[in-house]
Amino acid sequence: MESRRPRRTREKLLLGPGPSPVEGRVLRALAEPTLGHLDGDFVALMDETQELLRKTFQTSNALTVTMPGTGSAGMEAACVNVIERGDTVIIGDQGVFGQRMQDVAERCGATVIKVSAPFGKTLPEETLFEAIDSHPEAKLVGLVQAETSTGVLQNLDAIAAKVHEAGMLLLVDAVTSLGGMEVPVDRLGLDIVYSGSQKCLGCPPGLAPLTLSSRAVEVVRSRKTKVQSWYLDLTMIMRYWEQERFYHHTAPVNMLYAFNEALRIVDEEGLESRWARHRRNAEALWAGLEAMGLTLPVAKEDRLPSLTCLALPEGIDDGRLRRELMERHAIEVGSGLGEFRGRVIRVGLMGSGSTANNVLLFLSALAATLRRMGHPVDVASALERAEERLDGD
Amino acid sequence: MESRRPRRTREKLLLGPGPSPVEGRVLRALAEPTLGHLDGDFVALMDETQELLRKTFQTSNALTVTMPGTGSAGMEAACVNVIERGDTVIIGDQGVFGQRMQDVAERCGATVIKVSAPFGKTLPEETLFEAIDSHPEAKLVGLVQAETSTGVLQNLDAIAAKVHEAGMLLLVDAVTSLGGMEVPVDRLGLDIVYSGSQKCLGCPPGLAPLTLSSRAVEVVRSRKTKVQSWYLDLTMIMRYWEQERFYHHTAPVNMLYAFNEALRIVDEEGLESRWARHRRNAEALWAGLEAMGLTLPVAKEDRLPSLTCLALPEGIDDGRLRRELMERHAIEVGSGLGEFRGRVIRVGLMGSGSTANNVLLFLSALAATLRRMGHPVDVASALERAEERLDGD
Repeated sequence: MESRRPRRTREKLLLGPGPSPVEGRVLRALAEPTLGHLDGDFVALMDETQELLRKTFQTSNALTVTMPGTGSAGMEAACVNVIERGDTVIIGDQGVFGQRMQDVAERCGATVIKVSAPFGKTLPEETLFEAIDSHPEAKLVGLVQAETSTGVLQNLDAIAAKVHEAGMLLLVDAVTSLGGMEVPVDRLGLDIVYSGSQKCLGCPPGLAPLTLSSRAVEVVRSRKTKVQSWYLDLTMIMRYWEQERFYHHTAPVNMLYAFNEALRIVDEEGLESRWARHRRNAEALWAGLEAMGLTLPVAKEDRLPSLTCLALPEGIDDGRLRRELMERHAIEVGSGLGEFRGRVIRVGLMGSGSTANNVLLFLSALAATLRRMGHPVDVASALERAEERLDGD
Repeated sequence: MESRRPRRTREKLLLGPGPSPVEGRVLRALAEPTLGHLDGDFVALMDETQELLRKTFQTSNALTVTMPGTGSAGMEAACVNVIERGDTVIIGDQGVFGQRMQDVAERCGATVIKVSAPFGKTLPEETLFEAIDSHPEAKLVGLVQAETSTGVLQNLDAIAAKVHEAGMLLLVDAVTSLGGMEVPVDRLGLDIVYSGSQKCLGCPPGLAPLTLSSRAVEVVRSRKTKVQSWYLDLTMIMRYWEQERFYHHTAPVNMLYAFNEALRIVDEEGLESRWARHRRNAEALWAGLEAMGLTLPVAKEDRLPSLTCLALPEGIDDGRLRRELMERHAIEVGSGLGEFRGRVIRVGLMGSGSTANNVLLFLSALAATLRRMGHPVDVASALERAEERLDGD
């Protein structure tokens, strides 16, 4: 028997691609006493959580639940429940997570028609529409609304109309958007939408919110074969979330406490105010970074309010920059993924991390770090431009 | 914007089939500030957790990790990584979880040879050995060591020898045993073993510990097809737990804090003492229940120390009994599953819930409840018999 020192977690400011900072209220909820997964009080909390989640998704979809895993479990749940072996599906990619969705769909035995955008750009609608026209047999179109690897936002309005006109389902990854901007579930009739707890919703990682339209539920119910994943099989999971409370798996009870509290915070702030806050702080960040002479590789109209890719100036090493930000300032940012590896850092302003002070602090810390790395920037102008944007509304 | 009252979770004594009571130390660890899943401090915690988990599994297996989901995700991970479409596998069932494993294996596209025990009994070794002899093409034998639906313990000594002699892999469900009794991973060379965080390990539900022998890893590495689950694909997950820290999914960071703390507690107590404690308290419970004239449907030598099935006396309604225990005493026990539905309750003494006081309290509360339900029992003798067993060691 050896003795270990108690852990003391050094707090860091999480300004990367997620997890985002978690408020004390949410952490305290996480630490409430564990209840049984069929306990009456816990079941009441699930009901309330489901109601709050419908509000957050802006949907009246009956099947609105959390999957017991991280965001990628949401992606997998979305695919395995709707896709059967031999189906044709069209999946767009503007980055790593679209590519992951293609991989997941292939593992479900689907023939995947791949439509790609250049890294860092949105998917051209014409190309996607051509794929839809040439593959009328396709069961669904899968897309990433908020691509976490590039910070690109895909507008879904015209796409949703086209997909539904073609009689297909629209499957949407909203991991980095839900809670930080509109995810138009009912407005556009998005059929299968999943997200993650740890981005703009401000909960620790470990749960994947998921909602299905009644059309999608009908597709799940009329499957000819069993869902290949027992763990993520919605035909059973929906019976646990419904009145029946059919035992499936042991729900991650404490994570659901935290998720409930995080959704209460979203509800108290109000969706519109929360989106406006994410938008305002992102615009301040962008204005500040541009005033420093730095380049944002994604066109302004395609940028996510929650996550910004920042191109590194010539000669600035990505690993060293992130290390200095962490070691000197205890600020976490993300590295580039895919084609952006080594060339950008990813800066997230998500959930409770999206604040005016975090914008000012990040700009100051970045300027200090770049100066130490031999690349001085005009921090005064950066802060001034940012503050103008913050005062703007 | 509506206001909701803060939740106040009424504490319950969890003496059901899991989750088990979670100690304050573990709940406090859960609530530590969230870190990034690639953060240096978090990665150090993962390394320590892995070392502690190897001690708990009594293994030197390199591939010893937690899967980001509840116990059933462990079962699914065990199956999907090792099984390929068209494989033959032999899976034994002595209850609901063995049947679930058969279902999961079928969803992986395997031909499943089913060997069944009567509900509440162990699997007869001869029947299993015959299946092994008649199916030399089988890739693996899957078994439940600790069947949570019946409280039956399956001894694995002779089975492991036979399975390995036949050149097959042995896959074992240790959800309700790990931390409460021996799970002889290295001693018997068990090849794929999974468990759950929320039983004898005393952590909230949400993680599934998993360990693979080098033989099993070799089988995974030499697969001809991709693992059908992207989320549970060990060929990628092992690269995250190893030095490379390859990004796969966002780890459930706070759950891992709690799991680390729970394993520290296991380590401080020592495995042998912990098993002895589970054994001693279970025997006291059994002695007390029998002194009340109640029937334990599982033969003594086949009983799990962590979970006991108790047959209900004639005329005692299972739902009402459980409701009274909850409402009057805030004690949770489990209902019967499968063939035991409505006929038994399941009483768990797991993790920090396995205490002498909980035995005395449960016997007293049960006796009071049965008396109120018109079935008086001899509580004095029950407590006396239980205390004799508690003093025994």
